[in-house]
Amino acid sequence: MDETLRSSITRVPILKVDGTAGARAIDTLAVEEPLELRLQSGPAGDRHDTALSITMRTPGSDLELAVGFLVGEGIVRGNGRVLSVRHEGRAVRPDGTSNTVKVALAEDVHVDIARLERHLYTTSSCGVCGKTSVDALRMTLHPVLPQGSPVISAGVLHALPRVLRASQAAFDETGGLHAAALFDLAGKLLCLREDVGRHNAVDKVVGALSLKDALPASAALLLVSGRASFELVQKARMAGVPMLAAVGAPSSLAVDLAREGGMTLVGLLRDDRFNIYAGRDRVATA
Amino acid sequence: MDETLRSSITRVPILKVDGTAGARAIDTLAVEEPLELRLQSGPAGDRHDTALSITMRTPGSDLELAVGFLVGEGIVRGNGRVLSVRHEGRAVRPDGTSNTVKVALAEDVHVDIARLERHLYTTSSCGVCGKTSVDALRMTLHPVLPQGSPVISAGVLHALPRVLRASQAAFDETGGLHAAALFDLAGKLLCLREDVGRHNAVDKVVGALSLKDALPASAALLLVSGRASFELVQKARMAGVPMLAAVGAPSSLAVDLAREGGMTLVGLLRDDRFNIYAGRDRVATA
Repeated sequence: MDETLRSSITRVPILKVDGTAGARAIDTLAVEEPLELRLQSGPAGDRHDTALSITMRTPGSDLELAVGFLVGEGIVRGNGRVLSVRHEGRAVRPDGTSNTVKVALAEDVHVDIARLERHLYTTSSCGVCGKTSVDALRMTLHPVLPQGSPVISAGVLHALPRVLRASQAAFDETGGLHAAALFDLAGKLLCLREDVGRHNAVDKVVGALSLKDALPASAALLLVSGRASFELVQKARMAGVPMLAAVGAPSSLAVDLAREGGMTLVGLLRDDRFNIYAGRDRVATA
Repeated sequence: MDETLRSSITRVPILKVDGTAGARAIDTLAVEEPLELRLQSGPAGDRHDTALSITMRTPGSDLELAVGFLVGEGIVRGNGRVLSVRHEGRAVRPDGTSNTVKVALAEDVHVDIARLERHLYTTSSCGVCGKTSVDALRMTLHPVLPQGSPVISAGVLHALPRVLRASQAAFDETGGLHAAALFDLAGKLLCLREDVGRHNAVDKVVGALSLKDALPASAALLLVSGRASFELVQKARMAGVPMLAAVGAPSSLAVDLAREGGMTLVGLLRDDRFNIYAGRDRVATA
């Protein structure tokens, strides 16, 4: 078992019930733990740390998660703005990971922390947070993607969920993890990440691309295992990914945001069927 | 179509693809819109409003959602602490609803807004928010439930997902909504609510109970349509519901929190099978 998978799952004793008969068993669970993100920013001589956010996430790819989250917030584009990303804190595990990640930003990156915090509140999909007005949601800056190419074929799209499912190492063990995966236009899997939270899985993929300086991912499609919410469309847009496909259904706001941004949004992608909710010019059908 | 269902769904033109053939169609989506929660509190002569949080939610049962959220945060227990709950704001719809809900708390309810905001950050399941330490997560006060009774039979449990599914009005239309439902120990459906967010569906159920002064719901089981996260266990505990069952898998932290609080946690409840992750004494098996 590789290190990422080891930290993503845990085993617990349970009672397994079939009909009315109960039997003791050992079950594998997806790990859910808090991650604190610390941002170091400011010019030389005036560097300071800010404890920015806590997310409940599945450990593994934490550094990518942190960077991808900052891409989604418009703070980081490529890896040029990131000086270092590392785990820190008191409870560092033998493998060097912990539940705190510090991202040091380049000295010339100006971060208005107060503005960022307001922004964070408004872009939360859970929303048990936020001290701002409803109107601010619409004011967030999103890039509008160029129309037209690239184009993906319906046949390639149909094949993607099977590739995703076959590649989900931790899901097979737990049945409890969402996945996000980036594919090229020929359906080749470029990057897959898993998490108890859909938004975290997407952040991990985006962060992995950012750390490889591969953003914007303008000739790629992001596939998510669950439903497509407002927030996932937003994260794809901020990463410059022109196509988002979901195995589940999209929400109304997800469709609105995709249309407004010139994105392609595909939903209910399964059993050789799918719906195109926005940007149908990027999908080749008969 | 009733009013709640009407505001929960919307229709959009799509391209429906089967194999490689695309056809124009009209699809029904779950609505996702922001809800701002405003809290009015303080003693007579010093009443003030606080814009507390924004959640992306499916419109419908907004007043219950607001109250249920406050129950989860430990601010409201029964309806005695709530003077009024109503929609307000500029964009009030013909049916009187809007995207802002104001909850006026009784004058003797002391709310430490700063502490609440810190608390909100730490209990977020999305976590794109929060300015606090990881340790604070463990410091939140949760009631520990009394052990032993009530007991539910395995046979009753097996029947619940079918009842939930059959009662999900908006899911049938959209395929995109989570549900939470409260059942009594004989498997009778007491309350069901739907939302694009799992946590919102639970808040709506808890709020409905609170507004009827029916908390704690100590002889009942809460069933959720998706996976069981840390946050859902926390919300059930705060509402005094001793049993939480999920059609999907639980996370590790969900199991930890259920065990620590003396709750029963059932997962993967489907196809006449389920797993008991915590509190097995409340489930009668053969």
